[in-house]
Amino acid sequence: MDIKYINGGVTAPKGFLASGIHCGLKPGSLKKDLALIYSEVPAAAAGMYTKNKVKGAPIYITKEHLTNKKAQAIIINSGNANTCTGDDGLQKAKKMASLQAKELKLKTDDVLVASTGVIGVPLNIDAIKNGIPLLTENLSMEGSNDASEAIMTTDTFQKQLALEFYIGDKKITIGAMAKGSGMIEPNMGTMLSFITTDLSISPELLHEALKSTVNVTYNRVSVDGDTSTNDMVLILANGSAENPTITKKDENYDAFLNALTDLSTIMAKNIAKDGEGATKLLECQIIGAKSDKDAVVLGKSVINSSLVKTAMFGSDANWGRILCALGYADIDFDTEKVDVTFESSAGSIKVCEAGSSLPFDEGIAKKVLNEKEIVIKVNLFLGNHSAYVWGCDLSYEYVKINGDYRS
Amino acid sequence: MDIKYINGGVTAPKGFLASGIHCGLKPGSLKKDLALIYSEVPAAAAGMYTKNKVKGAPIYITKEHLTNKKAQAIIINSGNANTCTGDDGLQKAKKMASLQAKELKLKTDDVLVASTGVIGVPLNIDAIKNGIPLLTENLSMEGSNDASEAIMTTDTFQKQLALEFYIGDKKITIGAMAKGSGMIEPNMGTMLSFITTDLSISPELLHEALKSTVNVTYNRVSVDGDTSTNDMVLILANGSAENPTITKKDENYDAFLNALTDLSTIMAKNIAKDGEGATKLLECQIIGAKSDKDAVVLGKSVINSSLVKTAMFGSDANWGRILCALGYADIDFDTEKVDVTFESSAGSIKVCEAGSSLPFDEGIAKKVLNEKEIVIKVNLFLGNHSAYVWGCDLSYEYVKINGDYRS
Repeated sequence: MDIKYINGGVTAPKGFLASGIHCGLKPGSLKKDLALIYSEVPAAAAGMYTKNKVKGAPIYITKEHLTNKKAQAIIINSGNANTCTGDDGLQKAKKMASLQAKELKLKTDDVLVASTGVIGVPLNIDAIKNGIPLLTENLSMEGSNDASEAIMTTDTFQKQLALEFYIGDKKITIGAMAKGSGMIEPNMGTMLSFITTDLSISPELLHEALKSTVNVTYNRVSVDGDTSTNDMVLILANGSAENPTITKKDENYDAFLNALTDLSTIMAKNIAKDGEGATKLLECQIIGAKSDKDAVVLGKSVINSSLVKTAMFGSDANWGRILCALGYADIDFDTEKVDVTFESSAGSIKVCEAGSSLPFDEGIAKKVLNEKEIVIKVNLFLGNHSAYVWGCDLSYEYVKINGDYRS
Repeated sequence: MDIKYINGGVTAPKGFLASGIHCGLKPGSLKKDLALIYSEVPAAAAGMYTKNKVKGAPIYITKEHLTNKKAQAIIINSGNANTCTGDDGLQKAKKMASLQAKELKLKTDDVLVASTGVIGVPLNIDAIKNGIPLLTENLSMEGSNDASEAIMTTDTFQKQLALEFYIGDKKITIGAMAKGSGMIEPNMGTMLSFITTDLSISPELLHEALKSTVNVTYNRVSVDGDTSTNDMVLILANGSAENPTITKKDENYDAFLNALTDLSTIMAKNIAKDGEGATKLLECQIIGAKSDKDAVVLGKSVINSSLVKTAMFGSDANWGRILCALGYADIDFDTEKVDVTFESSAGSIKVCEAGSSLPFDEGIAKKVLNEKEIVIKVNLFLGNHSAYVWGCDLSYEYVKINGDYRS
């Protein structure tokens, strides 16, 4: 099945408009901070959220509005996460939705809400209220760039993707925008991703597809091990492609799931690559595991290890740190069967075999590890399950962004 | 019960000698790298080891030798961890013990082994063999400084402690030396601690006491979340104080446990304080928890969080990051009941109440956080269990030590 990537983002699919404006939420900044995605017709909708017990107010409101599995708009602000703000925060998140709904002549629960930014600071709902008319007026098929910009915090590049594929003779388009895990202000990163599609699919299957996809993509990214209070992935499917509605897990469902996963994989890697201070994208491939679950836990252990991340920053082929990270993950494996190989566009080099050292050319290892995208391949030789986990290196810049206010 | 701290280390208790020499294990360095602790009479012995599935060869040998719960000497080398070295490594660890045993006229299994240093590099057993005669000859009651120096890797200060207390009219002494979690070469940190005492106690109770102590001290230190492949705590109790042998958990056992825990707490904090690149010791106190176990998991989540550690490096009163770390620890708690307070010798300041922001004086917060020892106190208001966990901040120096080989 052919997937073709095209230019664009959330407005690429039929019947979607978007906008992004500055309404004044980032102190002393004229950057855009308010975004809107709108479907011209009601859409099936689904969401996946952070597992952190501390959740931003928008998450409670959005979950509530998704009880009926339908929505028609998503309003997002940056500059303030509206988290740890008590009942006041909940009321304001609700208000954001209702003000936007009114402007669009929708019911309040047809509007979903997301926020990213500073924690523990009351949301400036007045600025948002004042911005909503312009935000709504600016909705257009060309609005995805503005929307994508408005959700950014410390992202160094906009993250937008769009693709098309066919179901029968019907062209299906999927678009997405996301923001990565980094913020200039000293607060935590949040992963937000908003996906639009003109596919016609039942809400239940849309949720299934999103859940499957998120599990093997966004949930396999770790920049610094901290899961934000505001992480959210939302998808709207408005049926405007007019394909026969997908109501069971047939080959059309598979085609959609495949495309959605492909797009989300790229998006997840972009988020990992843009981690605070990152100079390299790291992909840990755990293969030959007893189960997918084991593979993911092991992969995350490697990707989260400060010692592995700093070694990668320094282009050091330190496989001992990788073995150490595997070893404390609390998953059974045979320490005398593990192979470790580093791969990149400059080549590949095996550095550990059967859990022990292997003579290798340090010069080649340095070449391989000096690249900007590195694969750490770990073969456990225990089964046929595998998982890929993404992250980034740990540099001075990370410490500077998150800890050094003198500079 | 009075504990009195005195000068000294592992040779403070009656009947213990120690030595430390250079035998040539650290390439291009004349630093000491081989240490020996010796009891003039056989001693009850116990050990606790890393839970990492990847274990250094010395751990296997030492565990084997401790099956009979007795020992009389411990030989330790730095410069090479003898880990991920396969069968060759196991044989060499065994050989270290047997060569030393021969020199001391002991049985091989009366000698315990430990190593710290580079991983995956074959151990230079010949250098050790050549060093053992001098190492043994140098044994003296004044040898604890040399021994303590010989086990260091990136430690910036020696870690030795000694104390005395009384059981009836018998003076009991406990001595200890430890090394922290840092290495100049780009490898992982290892926590090693060696404890000596002239107490007379049954081997079973010695093991119980060590286990209890380790659980609330060494196991509550995290420098960077990486549990080394070589972590080990060993204790020898040679009975030379001639107190009535402790055979049940009576008040004398309690007195010993109390002293051992007190000493190990200080040692654990010293290890945390000397974490690579650390500029501050962090103590996270989780109070009001439902269970000790919950409290420890929550405390470790906070102490391990890169975002919390960098905030502390920058003296930033960022309680949001602390709440976030608590939230992803996968422990139930009421997010609307949490208080967070920062304390140090410069004062204390509450920054979060009932899970929400509290207005606080940024100037005072900065003063409190600029100190070198900071307490992050989290009250969950759920029960009466608590735990203290120690770690350190995350600085540029950590990245430099572990990742930057250009410098």
